[in-house]
Amino acid sequence: MANFLSPEALRLKPYTPGEQPRDQQYIKLNTNESPFPPSPKVLEVVTTAQVGLLNLYSDPTCKVLEDAIAECYGVEPKNVTSGNGSDEVLAFAFRAFGGEGKPMAYPDITYGCYKTWTALFGIESKVIPLQEDFTIDVEEYMDFPGTIVLANPNALTGILLPQEAIRRLLEADPGRVLIIDEAYAHFGAESLAPLTREYDNLLVVQTMSKNRNLAGARVGYAIGSAELIAAVNRVKYSFNPYNVNRLSLIAGKAALEDKDYFQQCCKAICDIRAWTVRELEALGFTVLPSYANFIFAKSDAVSGGDLYTKLRQRGILVRWFDSDRIRPFVRITIGSQTQMEALVAAVGEILKEAEA
Amino acid sequence: MANFLSPEALRLKPYTPGEQPRDQQYIKLNTNESPFPPSPKVLEVVTTAQVGLLNLYSDPTCKVLEDAIAECYGVEPKNVTSGNGSDEVLAFAFRAFGGEGKPMAYPDITYGCYKTWTALFGIESKVIPLQEDFTIDVEEYMDFPGTIVLANPNALTGILLPQEAIRRLLEADPGRVLIIDEAYAHFGAESLAPLTREYDNLLVVQTMSKNRNLAGARVGYAIGSAELIAAVNRVKYSFNPYNVNRLSLIAGKAALEDKDYFQQCCKAICDIRAWTVRELEALGFTVLPSYANFIFAKSDAVSGGDLYTKLRQRGILVRWFDSDRIRPFVRITIGSQTQMEALVAAVGEILKEAEA
Repeated sequence: MANFLSPEALRLKPYTPGEQPRDQQYIKLNTNESPFPPSPKVLEVVTTAQVGLLNLYSDPTCKVLEDAIAECYGVEPKNVTSGNGSDEVLAFAFRAFGGEGKPMAYPDITYGCYKTWTALFGIESKVIPLQEDFTIDVEEYMDFPGTIVLANPNALTGILLPQEAIRRLLEADPGRVLIIDEAYAHFGAESLAPLTREYDNLLVVQTMSKNRNLAGARVGYAIGSAELIAAVNRVKYSFNPYNVNRLSLIAGKAALEDKDYFQQCCKAICDIRAWTVRELEALGFTVLPSYANFIFAKSDAVSGGDLYTKLRQRGILVRWFDSDRIRPFVRITIGSQTQMEALVAAVGEILKEAEA
Repeated sequence: MANFLSPEALRLKPYTPGEQPRDQQYIKLNTNESPFPPSPKVLEVVTTAQVGLLNLYSDPTCKVLEDAIAECYGVEPKNVTSGNGSDEVLAFAFRAFGGEGKPMAYPDITYGCYKTWTALFGIESKVIPLQEDFTIDVEEYMDFPGTIVLANPNALTGILLPQEAIRRLLEADPGRVLIIDEAYAHFGAESLAPLTREYDNLLVVQTMSKNRNLAGARVGYAIGSAELIAAVNRVKYSFNPYNVNRLSLIAGKAALEDKDYFQQCCKAICDIRAWTVRELEALGFTVLPSYANFIFAKSDAVSGGDLYTKLRQRGILVRWFDSDRIRPFVRITIGSQTQMEALVAAVGEILKEAEA
């Protein structure tokens, strides 16, 4: 491969998705999917008649979807762009706002793709360690002369950065772009999307994968000033103009419009999360305060690696990252109440074994 | 926008998709869509039950789809990768095989995105003019010290490069990658995919947008040696690991497996193309010899720009490129027989007006 590869491709740091084993039926708590099906409205609109129109291209401007997003978040369509999952939208934003003379800063513990995209686009990056308690101290970003990207709630930890801190970052340098990745928004914390009306330098990126139960449809979007959105679209039209397929456009619109179901699902995740945290804490776990559809937890009685392996043997997949600072933890997606009861029971057994 | 943009984003040359007007019902012969619906098998497999699973991620390895592609083209799954349309797959291949010390060569008249992707990834490109008759002379590529990309049949012209010429290019330098973009394969010409078993340096890229009537599902793929495929995947996993959504994976598989319908649709396009060419030639047009689902045609009696405008006034969209060498031509997608009869009638009227 090395002979054919460009030097830039040789330098890449590809992302490793959570495992998708096929050898048995697992309780999958490793990729932060929703345990609930898509909205019934999604099932209504993705009809055989719509499938029959797949010979026609999707609308490259994604109008029906972006109008619905604009409506939902109280902005204009020119303040919205969408993509094939928020991964694509974020990758576009990295190219739009990172490059020569525009380094990017992000925390050491966060979504793994930030490192991947800076490598892909040859963007110099400054990795700023989280505090001891895994929170972000915005003071450390205040003077950074480039683009800042923060997942909020943060990936892996689930910890939320208060809106006030984000306002201060935005105001410290109105010429500096701040990307807030809200993949995990709406599980107990409000989106910062409305702030984009106040700050031209704020890009809020969301996905329908988690809070709108559409991971398999691949729908993500960004909300920001018309200037920032035009910049992201500049990259989109330089990469893949028809980037959202026909069925996902209509599925995404239907999911956005069914606000009751959305709130009901998000609330259920919050309730199940609270239950799970209580149970794990009762078993002696330390659980970081999560505003996401997952928790990040560790126990003094069992290492992260062992817990991952032993849960896997019992048919439960969680995610463990074999890297500094977070090696003792596992990341556990909040599934259905039944799934979490199975998890807690399995954890209890594993701890008993460890004591014996 | 300029203040926020990275210098790399400022240098981009975004692609302009064919227009998608909403103001009236047009006969759309401007984006090379198939006039036929997807295979009935596609309608069978994209069920409400499958839509109900959209809360789960799609398989990042695209196994069901790539197994079907491998089966269809007589290669192993390790010789296949797939993406969100062939645009995405091609973009990945440009990054994998183009860069520092790896310039890329392609014809002056071809798919517009080649220029876009070399700009996106900062790849030096050598643009080699087509011959006077719009054919490619492979002699001009023989000594090129980089990666070569050729659309075959060529975009815009529809002209086919004989297999023998491609073999000579591959053999001239086995360390040089040749990307053959077969977006328009199967309309009278065989795919070169089987040649990938003989040549480790050949990457054949196809899309289901045209010959499998799935433009709106966004499914493309590449076939090549395990080495080349691993290189493309290296970029995929650095950009968007879950790049094909769940419904498109199963739709693509079903479309591939319905070989009868595929052949029937491709044959119909060839027959309608032959009819259209005869009619336009009878009206005095010069039509380049096309192996694609479109034709590239010009008339001495009406300019390309005028023909485009006057067809549009009559509710028929074709594509006209206001650029050197091809300004006299319009590109006309082969639609249904009825649509082409409407086109020929409209062209006849326009020519009569021009004479008057």
